Amino acid sequence: MKKIILIAFLFSCCIAVNGQQNTLNLMPVPKEFLLKDGKFRLTNKFTIRILPDKQKSDMSTNDRRATDTILYKAINRFYQQLNRKTGLVFSQQYIAPDDKLDSASMGIMPPSKGQSGIDQDENYYLFVDKNNIGVIAPNTIGVLHSLQTVLQLLAKDDDGYYFPCVQIHDSPRFKWRGLMLDVARHFISYDEIKRNIDAMAAVKMNVLHWHLTDDEGFRVESKAFPLLHQKGSNGDYYTQAQLKEIVKYAAERGIVVVPEFDMPGHAQTWFVGYQELASQPGPYHPGSRMQWQKEHPEIKTPPVTSIADIVANMVAPTFDPTNEKVYDFLDKFIGEMSGIFPSGYMHIGADENNGMAWKLNPKIMDWMKQHQMQSIDDLQRYFVERVYGLMKKHHRAMIGWEEIYNDKLPKDAIVHKWIPSDNSMIKSYGIANDIAQHNPVLISEGFYLDLFLPAYVHYNNASIAAANSPNILGGEAAQWTELADDNNIDGRIWPRAAAVAERLWSPASVTDVDDMYRRLFVLSNQLDEQGLNHLTNYERALRRLIDGGSTEHLQTLTDVLTPVKGYRKLIAGMMKAPQAAYQTTPLTSVSDIIPTDPATKRKFRALVKLYLEKKDKNAEEAIREYLQTWKQNDNYLKTSFVGNKRLQEIADHSKNLSAGAAIGLEALDRMDKGISDNAWVQKQSDALAVFEKAHYETELAVIPEIEELVIGHTIAEPEKYSAF
Amino acid sequence: MKKIILIAFLFSCCIAVNGQQNTLNLMPVPKEFLLKDGKFRLTNKFTIRILPDKQKSDMSTNDRRATDTILYKAINRFYQQLNRKTGLVFSQQYIAPDDKLDSASMGIMPPSKGQSGIDQDENYYLFVDKNNIGVIAPNTIGVLHSLQTVLQLLAKDDDGYYFPCVQIHDSPRFKWRGLMLDVARHFISYDEIKRNIDAMAAVKMNVLHWHLTDDEGFRVESKAFPLLHQKGSNGDYYTQAQLKEIVKYAAERGIVVVPEFDMPGHAQTWFVGYQELASQPGPYHPGSRMQWQKEHPEIKTPPVTSIADIVANMVAPTFDPTNEKVYDFLDKFIGEMSGIFPSGYMHIGADENNGMAWKLNPKIMDWMKQHQMQSIDDLQRYFVERVYGLMKKHHRAMIGWEEIYNDKLPKDAIVHKWIPSDNSMIKSYGIANDIAQHNPVLISEGFYLDLFLPAYVHYNNASIAAANSPNILGGEAAQWTELADDNNIDGRIWPRAAAVAERLWSPASVTDVDDMYRRLFVLSNQLDEQGLNHLTNYERALRRLIDGGSTEHLQTLTDVLTPVKGYRKLIAGMMKAPQAAYQTTPLTSVSDIIPTDPATKRKFRALVKLYLEKKDKNAEEAIREYLQTWKQNDNYLKTSFVGNKRLQEIADHSKNLSAGAAIGLEALDRMDKGISDNAWVQKQSDALAVFEKAHYETELAVIPEIEELVIGHTIAEPEKYSAF
Repeated sequence: MKKIILIAFLFSCCIAVNGQQNTLNLMPVPKEFLLKDGKFRLTNKFTIRILPDKQKSDMSTNDRRATDTILYKAINRFYQQLNRKTGLVFSQQYIAPDDKLDSASMGIMPPSKGQSGIDQDENYYLFVDKNNIGVIAPNTIGVLHSLQTVLQLLAKDDDGYYFPCVQIHDSPRFKWRGLMLDVARHFISYDEIKRNIDAMAAVKMNVLHWHLTDDEGFRVESKAFPLLHQKGSNGDYYTQAQLKEIVKYAAERGIVVVPEFDMPGHAQTWFVGYQELASQPGPYHPGSRMQWQKEHPEIKTPPVTSIADIVANMVAPTFDPTNEKVYDFLDKFIGEMSGIFPSGYMHIGADENNGMAWKLNPKIMDWMKQHQMQSIDDLQRYFVERVYGLMKKHHRAMIGWEEIYNDKLPKDAIVHKWIPSDNSMIKSYGIANDIAQHNPVLISEGFYLDLFLPAYVHYNNASIAAANSPNILGGEAAQWTELADDNNIDGRIWPRAAAVAERLWSPASVTDVDDMYRRLFVLSNQLDEQGLNHLTNYERALRRLIDGGSTEHLQTLTDVLTPVKGYRKLIAGMMKAPQAAYQTTPLTSVSDIIPTDPATKRKFRALVKLYLEKKDKNAEEAIREYLQTWKQNDNYLKTSFVGNKRLQEIADHSKNLSAGAAIGLEALDRMDKGISDNAWVQKQSDALAVFEKAHYETELAVIPEIEELVIGHTIAEPEKYSAF
Repeated sequence: MKKIILIAFLFSCCIAVNGQQNTLNLMPVPKEFLLKDGKFRLTNKFTIRILPDKQKSDMSTNDRRATDTILYKAINRFYQQLNRKTGLVFSQQYIAPDDKLDSASMGIMPPSKGQSGIDQDENYYLFVDKNNIGVIAPNTIGVLHSLQTVLQLLAKDDDGYYFPCVQIHDSPRFKWRGLMLDVARHFISYDEIKRNIDAMAAVKMNVLHWHLTDDEGFRVESKAFPLLHQKGSNGDYYTQAQLKEIVKYAAERGIVVVPEFDMPGHAQTWFVGYQELASQPGPYHPGSRMQWQKEHPEIKTPPVTSIADIVANMVAPTFDPTNEKVYDFLDKFIGEMSGIFPSGYMHIGADENNGMAWKLNPKIMDWMKQHQMQSIDDLQRYFVERVYGLMKKHHRAMIGWEEIYNDKLPKDAIVHKWIPSDNSMIKSYGIANDIAQHNPVLISEGFYLDLFLPAYVHYNNASIAAANSPNILGGEAAQWTELADDNNIDGRIWPRAAAVAERLWSPASVTDVDDMYRRLFVLSNQLDEQGLNHLTNYERALRRLIDGGSTEHLQTLTDVLTPVKGYRKLIAGMMKAPQAAYQTTPLTSVSDIIPTDPATKRKFRALVKLYLEKKDKNAEEAIREYLQTWKQNDNYLKTSFVGNKRLQEIADHSKNLSAGAAIGLEALDRMDKGISDNAWVQKQSDALAVFEKAHYETELAVIPEIEELVIGHTIAEPEKYSAF
């Protein structure tokens, strides 16, 4: 470890980043970062060398081989990304262990450890000076992180591409930085998963939490119980070969795959082929739990008059915890899956079981009496304990959503916090800091990407800000897929997930929202260049909507639309088409395809702030250009609405954007002339309040900024939005 | 077969399409097609039913199960594509064999045969009337084709989506309609292959000819000889599981996969791990054959002063046909691959072996003498015969490029014609009709997509036009990948391959190039909507080039650029960066990313024709709009060139487009005013001739049309372009 100490000394001049410094385009912002004078100029003579390492003899051959494979593959990917981006044809073609270079432009000290995983040392030291780039890291994962940082440092001036001279010492604030991805509601294809892993690696996330089973689909092939995937899905599932390939693909990018098999609730698809495991007689088929209850009117439950009633009284497909066969089955299944997912972690879900399927089964009620159980909570605890035992047997650390939490839960079970403490529908099990006094905690509370909230809301996550226990391992951005499929999921997750990644990686002191947004959209373009489809799928969907014409004016409008926030879109969809099944519902309406947190809104907002706070003339010019374009846009666009039902859904917004822009222009004129007129302000504000209303699950995103122009000062954005 | 006869009778009113009729947006144009009055209106009540079939008991259970799987999967994909395109939430969610519908909007008579393959009956009958859609086909493959036709019929009016009422009886002109895809020069990923299969299915192609091995890469995993993929590639190859998945994926779309393992030449990657199979001692590594010779200066050959010399005198890595171990090896290898590719066809390449590697090996020369062989041709024939024997043993029909052809070639070997009869570099083995008197023939002559030619050249393929033998099975579009990788290949192949598909499917009488282009770009949009990336990758690449700014003005220019034709771009690349290896060369310059046959050029050309031939005023208006945009474009764009080397390559074109557009506008003004001035015409033509010149491997595509405006009449486009 001497090398590390030496380098640490060299880096002692580094200053901790406090969020106000020049953060370049780095995302997440590194822990310690010093920008220096000078540039390392990238040419076709750029070479990379893994430095000779005498310490390597300490490692076992197997360890070394594993390290080298991941390391060399990553370096070659990096090299290829650089040459594709710059167009330079490098003289070195591949970086190989037997390279006979005497010197190289970039030197990498070989890491002494090859494992990647949750508890690894993720430190790396990186320097760029005018003639050399150097990387040192104790573990391969650190080198992987450093390469992503170098890619983000790439810049261009009139002489071509270069890296600015820097010194960086970086390591994460939290060791668990995950993305939870639901592939049950809509199946997400093998290729999509890989694309998301690439994007995760770019922002140094290290856990893919894969929600593989739910009422709507059982997405893993089981050889032990083939009816699980055969009958529990519509034919869309991952084969075991594919699962293993994904695990390997992720490992090569420093990412651990944690599978989730949801139980005892959210479990309908287990029962399609294995009805005997369920608490109610069935039959079952893949589909929503609410649909299941509709199909079983023989089950009498209390009347439902509100969403809260549904949560409390719905009878949903649920494992029978009193049936010993359930545990035999799960034992075998968990054993099988442990062979596919080597991470050592397994998530059992355990969320949202209201116990109604148990209460309405007299046998289960009798069993509870015999076992002196007072409540549904006792039975839930019993089930979780039994599954915990199976996990132990198969050497898995058990994770569950916070509903596994109780005062007798074994201390090494990981509690996954998701219920907002102020939620009115479902009782929270306590705040993260409190739970962390008993159990390790993961936080997804405030990180639900499927709620259509702007990135800053997740970035300012209060639960993370308050986190004060080392028992809080980190957190996960969460994407449920009722309203996402292969064709829009990239844009549903990215770039917002990068704001979560930064929150979990960078020091707590990094809090500048404006700077975060500036970097977020640079990153968004980088992810696009590297192959993520959040931009291309949006453009493709616009072409589909306009049926072959130009998308220019349509996109001018859709670039400033955003889906309605919270669960409103989900509920509206259920109302409109009760027959819809998630998997076959077309997600091609405007509200399905537009970005959640549009870049144009953020750029416009930054300009309005600059203008109102600093009276910046260039900003005013740019604001006027936006407003002029918007003002004219409805004239061009409205002909496209004829006969196009999906576009008619945004016809009002089109009118309102043009009218709103006219108000904004008038506001600027009045400010320029120094006119102050409260009546005018009131009238325009009233008009804008109308324009802000949602139509068909979309909202105009730039009305608040026009309102700011009207009233002449900025207004802080809300820190919270209601979910319903 | 009674049903077929009945339907054939109902269709007797159908008139053969002669290319002048309304072809709607169908591509390929069906054999017999009748457009009728009325529309079938698509609503969310649209249902599909497979009609009950009493004849089914004739089939074996296995046959039926295979049919049903492919059939139902295809129908459900079709259904999903319809609902995604239209946004309708259909009440029927999946089409299943046990559907209990009494009636349905669309009825499909179950096919009596389930196989797909080269020699299957591909007929289908399709009718759309106001209330019903009906499909009947003897074979599943016919149903698959009919579904693609229905998708292409989808249209929209002010009331929403509908299908026009039609009667169609369709079957192909040729039974072999392939795409040859090289994955050796650049590896093309698993996902890309699937996307291309989808596009092939959309235009009723039925053979994927997969060029899996060459000097630059061995792309299949071999368990019998693992050094083939391990040492013969850079790590990019398909696992056997992936190969099987692709074969299955293709079969589900009616497409047969024919693998090619190139031998005795183009074989360097066999020898990296198995040097003993080669004619020269080596060493070998994946890379260009020309590079290999440079690395072996000890091999003395005649001097090289021209490309023709290279072809004649290059010493390239080649199998040793006198070594019995070669045939033992190939026996085992062909056996292994036969288990993966069930099609019954295997392509052995056998192209471009000049025999130099044999001539310079004294042992091989001695062996030839002992065996009374007079020439290299004899030895080539001997090798091909031996491999033919191995193919027989493994029940494969052997295909080879035309270099396998000689008068003793067994009559069932398939000869793949590729060398243009008027080629000056390599001697052709005869025209297709002549070869077909002895052997079955496939035609790729005139179908080389990698020569950057416009679609009409392939569409007017003279070899196909002249084809008069039933022994000509069909043909294949061919895409070699020196200049294509995952990021641009969709645009290199599509939409032009669809023109080849139509040439091979539709009656010979379908020859209207203007109508072909109209439909080609409609199809291009459909392929984009269905997930092909030819448009999105182009836009993504533009974003990469402009580094975050707006691509609007850049695209205005690049939309009318085209890569230089023939092998000029390939040769220029080799000159510029001799160190380049295909796999690692960045294909991100303008000439790499632009479409080969730009839609804007075709639309502009059609307008100019309409204006010049019919004096159409609307056309003139549209032409002026294009010209005005182009005239102003350089002013906007030129600031982007500063410090951007790759964009500087098109700076001259940008100036010339604006200057050329000004000339075009003046030409219109003069025509409007009736001014005739030969001196002016001459001067402007001279200027345009300069603008037409290539810069950095791109050309301005719309100069010929501006020239037409200047001289006042249309000029036919060339039927041929030289390759060098």
